[in-house]
Amino acid sequence: MVNRMLRILWVNPLGTDMYDEGITKIINEVKRSDVEVKVVHLSRGPIHVEYHYYEHLSLHETLKWIWWADKKKFDAAVIGCFYDLGLREARELVSIPVIGPAEACMYVAATLGHKFSIIVGRRKWIPKMESNVYQCGLEKKLASFRVIDFTVPRMIKEPEKLKEAIYNAARKAVDEDGAEVIVLGCTIESGFMKYLIQELQVPVLDPVVIAWKCAEMMADLYRKIGLTHSKLFGYETPPERDGFLGALE
Amino acid sequence: MVNRMLRILWVNPLGTDMYDEGITKIINEVKRSDVEVKVVHLSRGPIHVEYHYYEHLSLHETLKWIWWADKKKFDAAVIGCFYDLGLREARELVSIPVIGPAEACMYVAATLGHKFSIIVGRRKWIPKMESNVYQCGLEKKLASFRVIDFTVPRMIKEPEKLKEAIYNAARKAVDEDGAEVIVLGCTIESGFMKYLIQELQVPVLDPVVIAWKCAEMMADLYRKIGLTHSKLFGYETPPERDGFLGALE
Amino acid sequence: MVNRMLRILWVNPLGTDMYDEGITKIINEVKRSDVEVKVVHLSRGPIHVEYHYYEHLSLHETLKWIWWADKKKFDAAVIGCFYDLGLREARELVSIPVIGPAEACMYVAATLGHKFSIIVGRRKWIPKMESNVYQCGLEKKLASFRVIDFTVPRMIKEPEKLKEAIYNAARKAVDEDGAEVIVLGCTIESGFMKYLIQELQVPVLDPVVIAWKCAEMMADLYRKIGLTHSKLFGYETPPERDGFLGALE
Amino acid sequence: MVNRMLRILWVNPLGTDMYDEGITKIINEVKRSDVEVKVVHLSRGPIHVEYHYYEHLSLHETLKWIWWADKKKFDAAVIGCFYDLGLREARELVSIPVIGPAEACMYVAATLGHKFSIIVGRRKWIPKMESNVYQCGLEKKLASFRVIDFTVPRMIKEPEKLKEAIYNAARKAVDEDGAEVIVLGCTIESGFMKYLIQELQVPVLDPVVIAWKCAEMMADLYRKIGLTHSKLFGYETPPERDGFLGALE
Amino acid sequence: MVNRMLRILWVNPLGTDMYDEGITKIINEVKRSDVEVKVVHLSRGPIHVEYHYYEHLSLHETLKWIWWADKKKFDAAVIGCFYDLGLREARELVSIPVIGPAEACMYVAATLGHKFSIIVGRRKWIPKMESNVYQCGLEKKLASFRVIDFTVPRMIKEPEKLKEAIYNAARKAVDEDGAEVIVLGCTIESGFMKYLIQELQVPVLDPVVIAWKCAEMMADLYRKIGLTHSKLFGYETPPERDGFLGALE
Amino acid sequence: MVNRMLRILWVNPLGTDMYDEGITKIINEVKRSDVEVKVVHLSRGPIHVEYHYYEHLSLHETLKWIWWADKKKFDAAVIGCFYDLGLREARELVSIPVIGPAEACMYVAATLGHKFSIIVGRRKWIPKMESNVYQCGLEKKLASFRVIDFTVPRMIKEPEKLKEAIYNAARKAVDEDGAEVIVLGCTIESGFMKYLIQELQVPVLDPVVIAWKCAEMMADLYRKIGLTHSKLFGYETPPERDGFLGALE
Repeated sequence: MVNRMLRILWVNPLGTDMYDEGITKIINEVKRSDVEVKVVHLSRGPIHVEYHYYEHLSLHETLKWIWWADKKKFDAAVIGCFYDLGLREARELVSIPVIGPAEACMYVAATLGHKFSIIVGRRKWIPKMESNVYQCGLEKKLASFRVIDFTVPRMIKEPEKLKEAIYNAARKAVDEDGAEVIVLGCTIESGFMKYLIQELQVPVLDPVVIAWKCAEMMADLYRKIGLTHSKLFGYETPPERDGFLGALE
Repeated sequence: MVNRMLRILWVNPLGTDMYDEGITKIINEVKRSDVEVKVVHLSRGPIHVEYHYYEHLSLHETLKWIWWADKKKFDAAVIGCFYDLGLREARELVSIPVIGPAEACMYVAATLGHKFSIIVGRRKWIPKMESNVYQCGLEKKLASFRVIDFTVPRMIKEPEKLKEAIYNAARKAVDEDGAEVIVLGCTIESGFMKYLIQELQVPVLDPVVIAWKCAEMMADLYRKIGLTHSKLFGYETPPERDGFLGALE
Repeated sequence: MVNRMLRILWVNPLGTDMYDEGITKIINEVKRSDVEVKVVHLSRGPIHVEYHYYEHLSLHETLKWIWWADKKKFDAAVIGCFYDLGLREARELVSIPVIGPAEACMYVAATLGHKFSIIVGRRKWIPKMESNVYQCGLEKKLASFRVIDFTVPRMIKEPEKLKEAIYNAARKAVDEDGAEVIVLGCTIESGFMKYLIQELQVPVLDPVVIAWKCAEMMADLYRKIGLTHSKLFGYETPPERDGFLGALE
Repeated sequence: MVNRMLRILWVNPLGTDMYDEGITKIINEVKRSDVEVKVVHLSRGPIHVEYHYYEHLSLHETLKWIWWADKKKFDAAVIGCFYDLGLREARELVSIPVIGPAEACMYVAATLGHKFSIIVGRRKWIPKMESNVYQCGLEKKLASFRVIDFTVPRMIKEPEKLKEAIYNAARKAVDEDGAEVIVLGCTIESGFMKYLIQELQVPVLDPVVIAWKCAEMMADLYRKIGLTHSKLFGYETPPERDGFLGALE
Repeated sequence: MVNRMLRILWVNPLGTDMYDEGITKIINEVKRSDVEVKVVHLSRGPIHVEYHYYEHLSLHETLKWIWWADKKKFDAAVIGCFYDLGLREARELVSIPVIGPAEACMYVAATLGHKFSIIVGRRKWIPKMESNVYQCGLEKKLASFRVIDFTVPRMIKEPEKLKEAIYNAARKAVDEDGAEVIVLGCTIESGFMKYLIQELQVPVLDPVVIAWKCAEMMADLYRKIGLTHSKLFGYETPPERDGFLGALE
Repeated sequence: MVNRMLRILWVNPLGTDMYDEGITKIINEVKRSDVEVKVVHLSRGPIHVEYHYYEHLSLHETLKWIWWADKKKFDAAVIGCFYDLGLREARELVSIPVIGPAEACMYVAATLGHKFSIIVGRRKWIPKMESNVYQCGLEKKLASFRVIDFTVPRMIKEPEKLKEAIYNAARKAVDEDGAEVIVLGCTIESGFMKYLIQELQVPVLDPVVIAWKCAEMMADLYRKIGLTHSKLFGYETPPERDGFLGALE
């Protein structure tokens, strides 16, 4: 069993297939050769989750995919949104490691420099994302949020302008806010990591890349040693007898 | 319009009517005479939300009730669970004040003494509830969590033993943990506030009572001055044109 | 006894009657119909308490008023200054709830948005007020202090300019500092709440209004259930036998 | 002028002369030979300040002594109580350095080991003292408060039992709470520093000794270089024209 | 170049080869098949680094190995001690990712549960290790340190007693301190991860395993995208012209 | 023995004698008449320690000097660099008090005003220095770091420009960042304390002066009472039998 490929599921918690190809391409550029990637999307629901209500709308089918991955003996799963939606619920339901891009990026960023800035599309996103920074304990390592005034749909439509806007915001974060590390605060702000690292000469974290690589590491540890999140207390799974796990099938 | 009664909706985010009467009774004992109470429950779903997945299952119909209350010109709404489930989503969707029992209790507790302890049913509950303490900024005012080892269903079945267990846990919180204030960490740990205050001689906060009184205050301020949560940034409502608000009707 | 009106004392800790009428007017606009308001001032002392020495000079007579209110069976009292002067001493001496405008405003603000800014008259005020923010645990929710360069006496003299200065400072707090909520950091910056909410389209907290409404809530809970601050430990009252309580009569 | 002795005032903020001799004796054992000590007490008021109301009663005459010391060109002053009463007010009024025993002890303790415990007489004292720990930013360095159940009057009456109780509490703080440093949380828990250091083999801070030595250092820096607390903003002195400084003469 | 094996250097910062075989064995059990491991030790110096002076004594040769790895185009390096000695200096000197076991374990632990406990050999170790917890921002996620009273030499001599002591301490951390995750606070407390996970039914982090897997991830990201720690500001390398880099050859 | 002079060693952890005279002069201007100063430098090593690798290179001989001072019965020692290099190691090795300029300045600054700013030569310095602020617990009292873009060598070469640059940066810290106190973040930014206090009208802390005065205080307490840092746990000295203390002779 040790010899079969590791399998990791990437769930785009969005009711559209339009991001799947791009995400798959980025993952394929960085993935280990002994890992199989499966990227899925939702059959319905919003095509972006800038609103917390949309996170809610996307959660049920997302949880079903995570549940499915656990049943199918995947080795890890990623919920592909920088709000880290549903992390608590997903980890409660399953035993395989579940990775959130924001959590993954922030802890990696914390090892790469004194302070990091997060580049976000809209000010709307900051309250929940900053709350996530606090939950991770990293408020003293947060240099700033920098807003580029792009909705997710516009990011898709204008990739060149997006790249430029990210560059400019990151530049200011480094020069004015004291950032030594840049975190891109949206899984759609993706695909420019190498370019930005070269141009800015500081580490830049693409949430697709970082979440994926953390998932690989956790999948590997799960397969080899059985390491995963604690199922005691906070992530204890609801009992079968209550009858609600059926809704995940 | 100023002269009509204030109306507040209490949503029990649970698929059962069995708590409605008890909650209504407690509210009626403490409510202002110029306020109308409406207690509702969900048409289906778990009968307790000790699991985060159950919070998720309860959220959609809960949001529909909050949405309905806003349309019907209620003056405030309470989501009756100490996990404060769906607070962010609800405030995003509506303009009327939405009260969470944990947030309400913790900020009131913070004004009544140096440190408070929260009495919870099971250790399972602590991780999310302690995260909520941190989000409120009150970690330095938290003396302890004390666990009484009661599931919610058992709380319903054995109210006398529940009262005794709460008393004993609160006693230890005061004597051993330095608590000056006690917070009951479940809307079902309710109805003993007066008794416990007299026996323990410290303030004891029943989340039904405190959430309700905060809701009255906010309803009043909303009616008279228009004060409610900020609709800029974090709680900005999704636009009609996206087409997902219809799911709340 | 339940049927008599709730009675709340508002103490202007200042040696002048010149604020009493204005404060009374604002309270009357927002108060519950079943509450009696009594606004008092000191027989002597400074006419503003921008200096901490002035807080000290005002404290003794303020405590006498609080003591008097407790003896006269008032249901709550407010010390009308945003420094929250004497809160610890007052709560030590009496059993009725004592409300501080800053503490009240900050905890309400914390429920209305991600971050708040406090508009103050002079930079002189910030150190003590920011210490109060820390004592409340809300440093992560503080967007900024914004200074309008008005002494309290000038606030009285130039109300129109005051309103304009507050508007401008609040505007910047929202646009530049990330505030979603505005707190007015002086009980004399009062009377503009409705106007500012409408103009700024964010919640604005007038300390007179918010302290009053919190006092109503606490008075109600005190009357109905006996809830008040903890008299164990921190707020334990000095014993009669020491002979110093007589100075309060 | 450099050649005259440094002069430091120690104010016992208590309406009794009974502590003066003991304090003077302890100071004389540790003081620099080029410093003159003057220990004073209040003409009236409580003989201990365990209650915050008593702090208030003691403050006015205490401030008069600080004011007097500044006029008489003393080089520093100490307010001899571990609640650090009146520090803000005193620093506002004068230019000479004013030392608080708790602040002095805690910052020295922070340089001597990883964590310190504070030995207090009664649980009553903890809320204000712990708030002072937070204001100093030292919550992560606080191992514990340990309570010996002594009122201040009993401390005076039973010095041998006091010494034993402090030893036992300190022992437990080291063995059970992880303290590497002990702070005695009352200026009456004084005179045992050398003994306790030898017996416990950890640093023990007597607030009389430490406050005094910090006062000497600050007096020296004030005389030689003019260093004292900032008079900009927080400690800005009230203007003469307001007419309230006269009450300090 | 993408096809050659990733190469990672593990430096045991100790003047003995006696740990090399054990460490190599553990790494070989968990490593990716496309990674080459090289474990080295120092030619002289202490055989454990429980003392900070010993960390200093070990640092120079450790830095030389890190420097060598960078020159030899290794893809990452690990400094194998849970004090995370020399992390700042090493990252300043080189461009390849440098992993510290404590930092790696703590951030992984933070994703696996609400709180973690660290099992240490002696109380001596706690101050520096707890300072490292604070630097990582994880104080709110630290349930406790648990001490097993083993020196490093005794760990080597009595592996079975060590395993038992770790199990007992971890058991108490879970049952009494609220830990959901266990971190083993020494690279010699290694080799029991799988056993402990099965026995304790909570995640247990072996610093050798976790540091190694994080190093693999970072090596992979470094090779594929060029991601490494920021060389701006904090980790800026000293200039050649100063003439001190030669001491590393 | 009480009558002999106190003796304090100042170690310039730098391989040059060029700072010794200047430091000695500054110390002589502020020192107590009953204290003997000895300023030493290293026989080799970098002439500044802006890089953490240079701190490492300087540490061994620095520790030898501290060890020597302890053997020679000095009463305290200062390691003269604002990075506070080697404080942990030095305190582990010896019993005499060891003072770090940054720690000393920050705790004194914390008693002189609400917030302080630190004036640094280069942005490179900030990450470690800000980490030191966090270790001291003073992040809420830190107004800002202000960078003057001077290397240490340039500071030596252009003292007048340095003075002007410090003045300008301090001015901005007060006017724009809310600083009430200024800390000079380098022992070479020294000699301007009196001038800057007069010009800026806020307290300005020269690390040479403040470290020295704290050393005097601690030396005095050590001689008279035996107070020094805790030798339990964190600063426990390595045992002779390990054979590594010989390297300090």
